[in-house]
Amino acid sequence: MSWGNTLKLTIFGESHGAAIGAVLEGLPAGETVNMDGILEQMARRAPGKDLSSTPRKENDRPEILSGILNRKTTGAPLCAVIANTDIHSSDYAELRNIPRPGHADYPALLRYHGFNDMRGGGRFSGRMTAPLVFSGAVCRQILKRRGISIGAHVLTIHGVRDTPFNPVTVSAGLLDRLSTCCFPTVSPEAETAMRAEIESARQSLNSVGGIVECAATGLPAGAGGPLTEGVESLLSPLLFAIPACKGVEFGAGFGAADLFGSEDNDSYYFDGETVKTRTNNAGGILGGITTGMPLIFRTVFKPTPSIAKEQDSVDLAERKNTKLAVHGRHDPCIVPRAVAAVESAAAVCLLDLMLTYHLIGGERT
Amino acid sequence: MSWGNTLKLTIFGESHGAAIGAVLEGLPAGETVNMDGILEQMARRAPGKDLSSTPRKENDRPEILSGILNRKTTGAPLCAVIANTDIHSSDYAELRNIPRPGHADYPALLRYHGFNDMRGGGRFSGRMTAPLVFSGAVCRQILKRRGISIGAHVLTIHGVRDTPFNPVTVSAGLLDRLSTCCFPTVSPEAETAMRAEIESARQSLNSVGGIVECAATGLPAGAGGPLTEGVESLLSPLLFAIPACKGVEFGAGFGAADLFGSEDNDSYYFDGETVKTRTNNAGGILGGITTGMPLIFRTVFKPTPSIAKEQDSVDLAERKNTKLAVHGRHDPCIVPRAVAAVESAAAVCLLDLMLTYHLIGGERT
Amino acid sequence: MSWGNTLKLTIFGESHGAAIGAVLEGLPAGETVNMDGILEQMARRAPGKDLSSTPRKENDRPEILSGILNRKTTGAPLCAVIANTDIHSSDYAELRNIPRPGHADYPALLRYHGFNDMRGGGRFSGRMTAPLVFSGAVCRQILKRRGISIGAHVLTIHGVRDTPFNPVTVSAGLLDRLSTCCFPTVSPEAETAMRAEIESARQSLNSVGGIVECAATGLPAGAGGPLTEGVESLLSPLLFAIPACKGVEFGAGFGAADLFGSEDNDSYYFDGETVKTRTNNAGGILGGITTGMPLIFRTVFKPTPSIAKEQDSVDLAERKNTKLAVHGRHDPCIVPRAVAAVESAAAVCLLDLMLTYHLIGGERT
Amino acid sequence: MSWGNTLKLTIFGESHGAAIGAVLEGLPAGETVNMDGILEQMARRAPGKDLSSTPRKENDRPEILSGILNRKTTGAPLCAVIANTDIHSSDYAELRNIPRPGHADYPALLRYHGFNDMRGGGRFSGRMTAPLVFSGAVCRQILKRRGISIGAHVLTIHGVRDTPFNPVTVSAGLLDRLSTCCFPTVSPEAETAMRAEIESARQSLNSVGGIVECAATGLPAGAGGPLTEGVESLLSPLLFAIPACKGVEFGAGFGAADLFGSEDNDSYYFDGETVKTRTNNAGGILGGITTGMPLIFRTVFKPTPSIAKEQDSVDLAERKNTKLAVHGRHDPCIVPRAVAAVESAAAVCLLDLMLTYHLIGGERT
Repeated sequence: MSWGNTLKLTIFGESHGAAIGAVLEGLPAGETVNMDGILEQMARRAPGKDLSSTPRKENDRPEILSGILNRKTTGAPLCAVIANTDIHSSDYAELRNIPRPGHADYPALLRYHGFNDMRGGGRFSGRMTAPLVFSGAVCRQILKRRGISIGAHVLTIHGVRDTPFNPVTVSAGLLDRLSTCCFPTVSPEAETAMRAEIESARQSLNSVGGIVECAATGLPAGAGGPLTEGVESLLSPLLFAIPACKGVEFGAGFGAADLFGSEDNDSYYFDGETVKTRTNNAGGILGGITTGMPLIFRTVFKPTPSIAKEQDSVDLAERKNTKLAVHGRHDPCIVPRAVAAVESAAAVCLLDLMLTYHLIGGERT
Repeated sequence: MSWGNTLKLTIFGESHGAAIGAVLEGLPAGETVNMDGILEQMARRAPGKDLSSTPRKENDRPEILSGILNRKTTGAPLCAVIANTDIHSSDYAELRNIPRPGHADYPALLRYHGFNDMRGGGRFSGRMTAPLVFSGAVCRQILKRRGISIGAHVLTIHGVRDTPFNPVTVSAGLLDRLSTCCFPTVSPEAETAMRAEIESARQSLNSVGGIVECAATGLPAGAGGPLTEGVESLLSPLLFAIPACKGVEFGAGFGAADLFGSEDNDSYYFDGETVKTRTNNAGGILGGITTGMPLIFRTVFKPTPSIAKEQDSVDLAERKNTKLAVHGRHDPCIVPRAVAAVESAAAVCLLDLMLTYHLIGGERT
Repeated sequence: MSWGNTLKLTIFGESHGAAIGAVLEGLPAGETVNMDGILEQMARRAPGKDLSSTPRKENDRPEILSGILNRKTTGAPLCAVIANTDIHSSDYAELRNIPRPGHADYPALLRYHGFNDMRGGGRFSGRMTAPLVFSGAVCRQILKRRGISIGAHVLTIHGVRDTPFNPVTVSAGLLDRLSTCCFPTVSPEAETAMRAEIESARQSLNSVGGIVECAATGLPAGAGGPLTEGVESLLSPLLFAIPACKGVEFGAGFGAADLFGSEDNDSYYFDGETVKTRTNNAGGILGGITTGMPLIFRTVFKPTPSIAKEQDSVDLAERKNTKLAVHGRHDPCIVPRAVAAVESAAAVCLLDLMLTYHLIGGERT
Repeated sequence: MSWGNTLKLTIFGESHGAAIGAVLEGLPAGETVNMDGILEQMARRAPGKDLSSTPRKENDRPEILSGILNRKTTGAPLCAVIANTDIHSSDYAELRNIPRPGHADYPALLRYHGFNDMRGGGRFSGRMTAPLVFSGAVCRQILKRRGISIGAHVLTIHGVRDTPFNPVTVSAGLLDRLSTCCFPTVSPEAETAMRAEIESARQSLNSVGGIVECAATGLPAGAGGPLTEGVESLLSPLLFAIPACKGVEFGAGFGAADLFGSEDNDSYYFDGETVKTRTNNAGGILGGITTGMPLIFRTVFKPTPSIAKEQDSVDLAERKNTKLAVHGRHDPCIVPRAVAAVESAAAVCLLDLMLTYHLIGGERT
């Protein structure tokens, strides 16, 4: 349930309970935490910024319960709590009998014997990524001081495509810029076209999905290991923990299926004293270990399952087929908001790796 | 490093050490283990069957050290050891200084400070999947007795494509057939065309990759959970532990990025007393929990990095650029052999889920 | 850091931070939680009840953030938070340079490079057992509904001794009575004598320790396993997590060193249809597995290290020897308050065992 | 089931199966392993050395399957296997129906539904400590090169008492001497008297137990943490995993129950530039963290339950009371052989601590 090796992340809460939050164990003591930087990241994930997202207003100011004193980590578990406010639970009353297609309603009913908190999606809500973004924001600051930058962009929305990262030359500057945007794209035109696509879906009572591409620069070579010790095996569970994520690929990813070995292999050369590769189909990982080249990966998010269009479903009480239209406040596309969650998963994972392989330690800032 | 919740899998060994093996903890006591069925699965993964794979002859008969008595599990950890034989280590002498592109040589050198066993790829070798296939074969038998079938096929090889699974109607019969084939495809023509593509790559001293599609039927709804408790978060680390795996997707996967919500959502209906969905873009998982529909996922494997073509690399001792041609015995395509590993990862994962959520227990066979 | 197999317990917080709390993952859904019963247990641990404990007034009403809806568990992680109030942090100002003997001050300084929150003992405070008692109170209710009772008493305080449990005939009735007392003893005279001993220590500016003996009845045989799977290996880390605990023994414990095998072995007999033992030197555990006889164990707590008497210490800033007298509010004896923590550790451990070995499940209340 | 944080120890096997063994994951790469030193430790645990132990002849030469190349660790999991030889399984035929008092027979029957391998005690046999001693011997060598010595002695056997360690002045020299003895005592007279006590028990068809006291010197201060992060919470599960262990105490242990705080507190002073304590009732641990003073702990082992004297038991097939005399080869006292197991648990635990808290790393030998 909890995740991690040196760093352990535990996320608790349900969408319409009292609060949600995270406990992050294993942070080194003495690391400065900048609250403004954290709030900036949480705002990227928060809904209600414009028409592309749900109008629910979240006032997601995390309260630090432990682990930070005088703006520095104490080495004790860091617990942050985010109160649930602006809750309209009456919207969810009928869902216990008529499960929404594409949502966890039906399997969760069986898993929890009907006792799970379904209000607002409960523990399956996209809101559960807020504690992940909080945690990632803390880790990101620690990594940034060691020269590691993490950033992501919306690569596609329903077929509309941004310029992909150049996996060899992607720069800290670009990643730093993207990692402060609410709708991050490499090309400004892509954002405009994607917003139009989302608005079009919204107007037709529908929703769309897309792909997030993430990169990290400044990583030392030598972190990770073979088999389940690999970077991919550490990072993928956190990415799949983000609701609506249906796929994860590293480097050339699924595209590698169409390459020859001679095309896919990244050949080595000396750039001054540094060993680099001329291409980066590996996405910065070979044998589960960082190569020192940029980390590159992509995650796909399915269209928001909550759509106002009428859908077929079943009435579990009456044991018969029925129709359902989902009301309430929903994003026509959660991909832009998922970017901060993806970056955060990467940040938590990379800090865990740096600590586990003794690449961070000793020095304090 | 080790993997699992109720079931724990630990894989040890290096390609050219004395032996490789697995320890599987948490198996229920009293389960019949059929050794012939295990050997059949291990033969699927073994090399040397034809021109599409490396001529290395592995005599992969696992020796059971513990956990089985009179063909039944005792409830103690099951340890199986596979001796390493037919080893030609002289092939690997120069690699410590000149890392092979696409292999773990260079990052592993940094990770292990030069002390790792590089012979035959060491712990990064595809041979390390043999203990996984052994473990999966044991788990598969336990699942099969509860009506759960697991099978996979080669979906693509370098652009040549097999008929994909119908995610709604994929049958136990088909999966059972595929799970005994060495080059499993739904369509016989696809196998012929793929073999030709692989042979063509081999003759041009090159290699090709591809995609494996896996399915499981007979799963009960209600296993898994949200966030890192999800089926995807449990299974993906095991899949990425298979060498050369660069991507994992469930259900519609990356294709979901191009769908509307109204297309992607799988609508419910009653099939007699059973709740089913008309489509299965979810791949049998919603909110990290099994829905009762077939589990469907895909993994991509990059082309074998060992190619006889000359490649650019670096001489780490001389600190200069150099050329490298990889000699030795290598598969021009590892995808057909990876099928058994993929199915095995699924089997281990699904048995862990069944045990964790108390869906298997009590009864003995 | 976190603890458990099926159930995972994570405790966060520091004594004088904003709050302390616990996250308990893996609880079955649909279990009724009675808040009054929880508060009753927390009151037993709380200080300020009489002269035998610190006058600090804790208003330890836990706030449930998640995991409970309509008084029933939802199956999501249960997070409870207890605010830190009545804090007098100025008492602790000089401790960073002059470590208190018997406290964690000095090793914690090295462990956390001076960044740990020392106020009120920080994360080393006995106050950190409040989240454990909360968690134990929840688990105890679930166990109680299955006929499992847990109770403990103060066996000794500085040589004053209560009547020990009869390890064969200890009854649920006795355990239920003890588990609601604030100073639980089998014999009323023992409580009186112990209180006198504690008061005497208090008046001489000193402190005393003692031993807590705990039992559980109603346990089914067959939970646990050999080696680190054993009940002792699961329970002992939780007991040693209670501050000031310096030893744990099961059944005859250290006394077994003076017995012959013929004395120590508990012989079997049929009591009607039930297999029982005539003695219970095993303390209800053989080979790490419950035998069905009462679980019996003892833990020792050292005297409170905070004493008003002047002691030798060092001045780490001046690098010289010095004297120290610890001011502030402290218990002359923490043993009576530790009883609830010991019982709680047992409750959490036993519920984990019942869930792991499928001895609880299915039925709901 | 498996144990550890940075280092993970998995022990597999059953007494009369094909083999037993251990997998130790997380060892740093490049550490020299001296096989003679390992065999020396394993010989200490092996039976058959004299009349005080079972005449079973074990030829316990571990075979290294992985993780070591050219006498140095590779960083891959270290797997060692010890074949089971000299097996007389016919001795154990009747035990399935008539459980031996003091053994795991009865609870294991319930735990494993009758499918566990009971021959030779199966997984509950004292033989299962051989892989622990192997693992400890490897870790001990790594620690020794960093100036950490671990040694233990037989403190008591059935009331006969050796000179206890002086917890302040116990020396590496003494520990190094003890850690090569088969019957280690501080005082030679104690060994003589203890051997006489054991022989006396043997002749009366009985058995005796005792206490092992263990110490480690050269530990840096600052390893460990509060609550379940503590040294005691890490070490105690490994100690309780040793069959027949019924209690564990640190420093003054249960004796602390009779001390005043002013007696128990260890006062600090400067010994040159080093902070030390004048006494060491803490046993080298405060708040779960090493203080830099010697680590001191004690474990008690009950008398061998296998005795030739007739005992009361039950016939589970006939459902009636019966008598039982245990035949076969058994130690009248396992305490001297347990010493190597206790030291080994300490060695594995201390190396895990040193790695987790970054106190070992970087340098190679």
